[in-house]
Amino acid sequence: MKSIGIIGGTGYTGGELARILSLHPDVKIAAMTSRQNAGQKVCSLQPNLKGYTDIEFTESIPESADVDLVFVATPHGAAMKIVPGLMERGIKAIDLSGDYRLHDIQLYEKWYGHQHTDPDNLEKAVYGLPEFYRGNISKADLVANPGCYATSAILPLAPLMRSGLVDGTVFVDGKSGTSGAGMNPSPRLHHPTCGESVIPYSVGMHRHTPEIEAVVGDISGKGADVLFVPHLVPIVRGIISACYVRLSEEADQEKLDGIYRKAYDGEFFVDYVKEPSIRAVVASNHAQVASHADGGSAVAFGVLDNLVKGASGQAVQCMNLMLGLEEKEGLKSPGLGV
Amino acid sequence: MKSIGIIGGTGYTGGELARILSLHPDVKIAAMTSRQNAGQKVCSLQPNLKGYTDIEFTESIPESADVDLVFVATPHGAAMKIVPGLMERGIKAIDLSGDYRLHDIQLYEKWYGHQHTDPDNLEKAVYGLPEFYRGNISKADLVANPGCYATSAILPLAPLMRSGLVDGTVFVDGKSGTSGAGMNPSPRLHHPTCGESVIPYSVGMHRHTPEIEAVVGDISGKGADVLFVPHLVPIVRGIISACYVRLSEEADQEKLDGIYRKAYDGEFFVDYVKEPSIRAVVASNHAQVASHADGGSAVAFGVLDNLVKGASGQAVQCMNLMLGLEEKEGLKSPGLGV
Amino acid sequence: MKSIGIIGGTGYTGGELARILSLHPDVKIAAMTSRQNAGQKVCSLQPNLKGYTDIEFTESIPESADVDLVFVATPHGAAMKIVPGLMERGIKAIDLSGDYRLHDIQLYEKWYGHQHTDPDNLEKAVYGLPEFYRGNISKADLVANPGCYATSAILPLAPLMRSGLVDGTVFVDGKSGTSGAGMNPSPRLHHPTCGESVIPYSVGMHRHTPEIEAVVGDISGKGADVLFVPHLVPIVRGIISACYVRLSEEADQEKLDGIYRKAYDGEFFVDYVKEPSIRAVVASNHAQVASHADGGSAVAFGVLDNLVKGASGQAVQCMNLMLGLEEKEGLKSPGLGV
Amino acid sequence: MKSIGIIGGTGYTGGELARILSLHPDVKIAAMTSRQNAGQKVCSLQPNLKGYTDIEFTESIPESADVDLVFVATPHGAAMKIVPGLMERGIKAIDLSGDYRLHDIQLYEKWYGHQHTDPDNLEKAVYGLPEFYRGNISKADLVANPGCYATSAILPLAPLMRSGLVDGTVFVDGKSGTSGAGMNPSPRLHHPTCGESVIPYSVGMHRHTPEIEAVVGDISGKGADVLFVPHLVPIVRGIISACYVRLSEEADQEKLDGIYRKAYDGEFFVDYVKEPSIRAVVASNHAQVASHADGGSAVAFGVLDNLVKGASGQAVQCMNLMLGLEEKEGLKSPGLGV
Repeated sequence: MKSIGIIGGTGYTGGELARILSLHPDVKIAAMTSRQNAGQKVCSLQPNLKGYTDIEFTESIPESADVDLVFVATPHGAAMKIVPGLMERGIKAIDLSGDYRLHDIQLYEKWYGHQHTDPDNLEKAVYGLPEFYRGNISKADLVANPGCYATSAILPLAPLMRSGLVDGTVFVDGKSGTSGAGMNPSPRLHHPTCGESVIPYSVGMHRHTPEIEAVVGDISGKGADVLFVPHLVPIVRGIISACYVRLSEEADQEKLDGIYRKAYDGEFFVDYVKEPSIRAVVASNHAQVASHADGGSAVAFGVLDNLVKGASGQAVQCMNLMLGLEEKEGLKSPGLGV
Repeated sequence: MKSIGIIGGTGYTGGELARILSLHPDVKIAAMTSRQNAGQKVCSLQPNLKGYTDIEFTESIPESADVDLVFVATPHGAAMKIVPGLMERGIKAIDLSGDYRLHDIQLYEKWYGHQHTDPDNLEKAVYGLPEFYRGNISKADLVANPGCYATSAILPLAPLMRSGLVDGTVFVDGKSGTSGAGMNPSPRLHHPTCGESVIPYSVGMHRHTPEIEAVVGDISGKGADVLFVPHLVPIVRGIISACYVRLSEEADQEKLDGIYRKAYDGEFFVDYVKEPSIRAVVASNHAQVASHADGGSAVAFGVLDNLVKGASGQAVQCMNLMLGLEEKEGLKSPGLGV
Repeated sequence: MKSIGIIGGTGYTGGELARILSLHPDVKIAAMTSRQNAGQKVCSLQPNLKGYTDIEFTESIPESADVDLVFVATPHGAAMKIVPGLMERGIKAIDLSGDYRLHDIQLYEKWYGHQHTDPDNLEKAVYGLPEFYRGNISKADLVANPGCYATSAILPLAPLMRSGLVDGTVFVDGKSGTSGAGMNPSPRLHHPTCGESVIPYSVGMHRHTPEIEAVVGDISGKGADVLFVPHLVPIVRGIISACYVRLSEEADQEKLDGIYRKAYDGEFFVDYVKEPSIRAVVASNHAQVASHADGGSAVAFGVLDNLVKGASGQAVQCMNLMLGLEEKEGLKSPGLGV
Repeated sequence: MKSIGIIGGTGYTGGELARILSLHPDVKIAAMTSRQNAGQKVCSLQPNLKGYTDIEFTESIPESADVDLVFVATPHGAAMKIVPGLMERGIKAIDLSGDYRLHDIQLYEKWYGHQHTDPDNLEKAVYGLPEFYRGNISKADLVANPGCYATSAILPLAPLMRSGLVDGTVFVDGKSGTSGAGMNPSPRLHHPTCGESVIPYSVGMHRHTPEIEAVVGDISGKGADVLFVPHLVPIVRGIISACYVRLSEEADQEKLDGIYRKAYDGEFFVDYVKEPSIRAVVASNHAQVASHADGGSAVAFGVLDNLVKGASGQAVQCMNLMLGLEEKEGLKSPGLGV
């Protein structure tokens, strides 16, 4: 039985980690931190966990807690203050923020707007997308858990880019449920504003842009140029991203099918389908990829639950690898379907 | 052409007043106030009004503005600081907050939790429900515009109570779209919280409870005891309230139909229907009432758009009466249907 | 390892049974029927089950399949044609339709509008609400799985009725997500009709009315008279029902709390809470009950996921009891929370 | 006062025409047809129109009705059976189906899958997008009203294409509210399917693809190659389309702003904005266009209410032109905003 800590337990990704881990047969949550709720039971704030966990929030992970791995579920900028201490104590860590995703420190500082204070760990952090970095994750002390939009775009884009078929700029049109924006109320997330609307935001300026470019570039061995436009859609959970590309030579559907089947046929959590469906994956760690060839162009889709495969589920998948557990453990649960 | 002011122009009811009045043939908006947006064009904050109004927000209604009537669209507690000044200047006013709805000052202070500082005007304020107080509204200097839930409950309850058929406590189950809660983001209005849920709140403690009791009591001449439970539903506009009553004697559907037809057959804005539908009235000043007899009990429904017949549209209906204009002017527009 | 059949596998409750059972450690699905899809893989129609079940739909449960229990997930009227054959073959059955819920055959025929052709089994069917009929379910050959609305009303009503505090007619205002209406498209379930609306339907005439009356009456030992008004709300999963009652004597909150704590403190799947939340239970077999005392009246709430505790999850809970398995097995999974 | 007929009055676009025309000062609806509802009052099926129109559905436009113009709001394929008769009677017509939008008859038959039986009128039909074909519409006897998606894509694409800046294939990612799919229930429009999802459909095969290509090509004088992917989003009204293009030379925001301001500064119904918003235009005939320059690429947005500027409102705009009325008459009404 492995012992786990969660730093930043009140947010949506922290809560989702607790929900998933409460069913994991091989780990137990030893500590869950929340500054404003220290001393309160976790299930008093997250009543869905009543009967599943009895622990209380603490200010920090107690020195006495002999934890094997810590999830850092704090905002960007806060994580890089916390991770160095964990590394020094010899505790493995998975950071769910963006602090360790971009290895190029200039790129980080440009897109995140502040200095990176932990360049040493940044260098050795492994990008936590198991379908492409399984081996490195297994050996890592620090994993940077991918962004939700980024995962939904990299899964369809990486195999296509790697095939050498893609020519020039890639357009990613992302549509995300509102839980992706976190638990803090804001004008855009106010129901009267977003409940009957579809709202593009951070057009061309969203921080997942360089993440998609860097990771797709790394996987494919080719520089990637991405124009990414996220949209808020009035659903709670789920992302679907449409990736539009021009092809260097005409390709038919069979060719695209071959590329994706080769990439994902052995992957339990990525399903290559004809008709992508958010409802098929919601509440699960499963993702779907689909594609459509259109002569000299193509569109490829990535679909997932932003809080599971797009965040906490993927983090648990990485945890399993890092702790030598079966990769699927605690995550074998189908999407809701309806 | 009458000249109108709106105090508190940035909120939803202020914006809705501007939208409705921009099409009114007999009035013009002379001034619209907003402390934080003074100097900015109204249509820069409310882009739907571009091409319909060119005025700028001001700090207050200028002394020079020779206005005939002012809508006070500020929060509870703020309105009663503003109304006395208007009355002194001889300007008619319609208050959209709750400050002048409860004539019983003790009741106000109990439910609103603060002192009432303008008892003189409270005494002479007329409740702005034209279907029942048309004559008084026409002569009033100060009108207290009804609450959205209150209107949705009074319209079905008042005729039934007046008939003498109702026995004892009345249960009102209200379901409101989220725009009824105003434009300030809050945890309950955060889309991930309310977007796929139905949330009861202020159970038995909502401020429209004494308003419904007082007005229904006044119209029917009988004391009313109401248990009111509002629910937030994931739609933007619209309220439907179900009012459950026991009857002092068994009544069939024909009897109920007769009571409601007599009450509303001559009313342009209240339609007595078999199957109530929010979509039929949304974006309009129309309301619907329906009823179902069930032996010794009955349920009656009230349906309306919370921002129109539940707030700004009803206020304009009152304005028409107060200024000697045709009651329907500027409000003759059907609901969207779809 | 027990062997299970599902008759009527293409509907929502059939699919939900498959989803839940695919994770159950002690049973396997031996057969799943669908006339129109016989020969096709279940996961080709329900892609969320890919990787979880590999079986194909069959026309009927094969004679060769040595099944221990069959779920009948067909429409009302069809189930009573199927159950007799199962009973004759000595196969335990759980019927998810309304065919075996009302022991009074006249009542059945009045509310369902057709003759009951299996009065013998009707007589011995046990109502499948484990919190109140655990012992009988354990010994039953045939269980009538409760209706979704009925469960959401009986859980809050039964303890209160049993206390003797309730006086006269009870009003139940139900609000259900759209999946409760099944998978067949219809005008009311058409998104443009219901997506931004709240729609009361079958007012006073819904078939769960006599079910609530009969079961609450049986549990409490007192005749129950219910006026039930269901509403369609624009969410996919989830029911919340508000039950309004008058009390035979004034009761304070403490008294109500005592009644409900006594009823549910030992129940894993029913949680008595202060603030009921659909999101806390959605996708789980958990239900919540809450209450509010208001002098001589009270309101009590029941909350659940209509497809889980309101249908397939509750059926699996009954199955566990009938097969001598641990009651919670396969159902220990928290609600989504967000 | 002009006299108007509506053929196909029960569908969403027919109902929306009636809603809009009921407020138009210069026209009256002389006849509204519906085969299945002939003899019934229009407002008995569309209760929002009660008090606004008193006419009954008829089987067909009576010979005696001296109508000036007829809207044909029937499905594709049916319209081309009706229009020839109207032309022979010398009645102007606006067809809201796709039957007269594609002048290339081969293209029509390829995309619509059946023969075109009225090639003569096809040839002289004018595409009803007033912002680009105002003069021709004014002189036309037959106008083909644009598709909803097509309008949302042509408005942002046409000025950019015309500038000569666009290089190669254009990607259009459309997101539409569900009312765009019409009033017939279907599995995709079933609330449990689409209510918490975003569903791409007809990928690369939607009939608005050749319409966008033809019209943008005609306006810009340059051949257009479009890959169009429509998505169903869970809102009732509203479309937002994102159009992704590569540029033949790098362009900054100022350059794009100049292009769009020149195109739309004089247009009352098309607003070039920084932040596009469905809520700002919903329930109105207004559209919004926005753009974002990203070096060698760009994205441009088109936003409108699919039933108004995307269908019936635009048709009334064309009617005004065809009948010599003021173009904005009956359409001067702001979007809801909230």
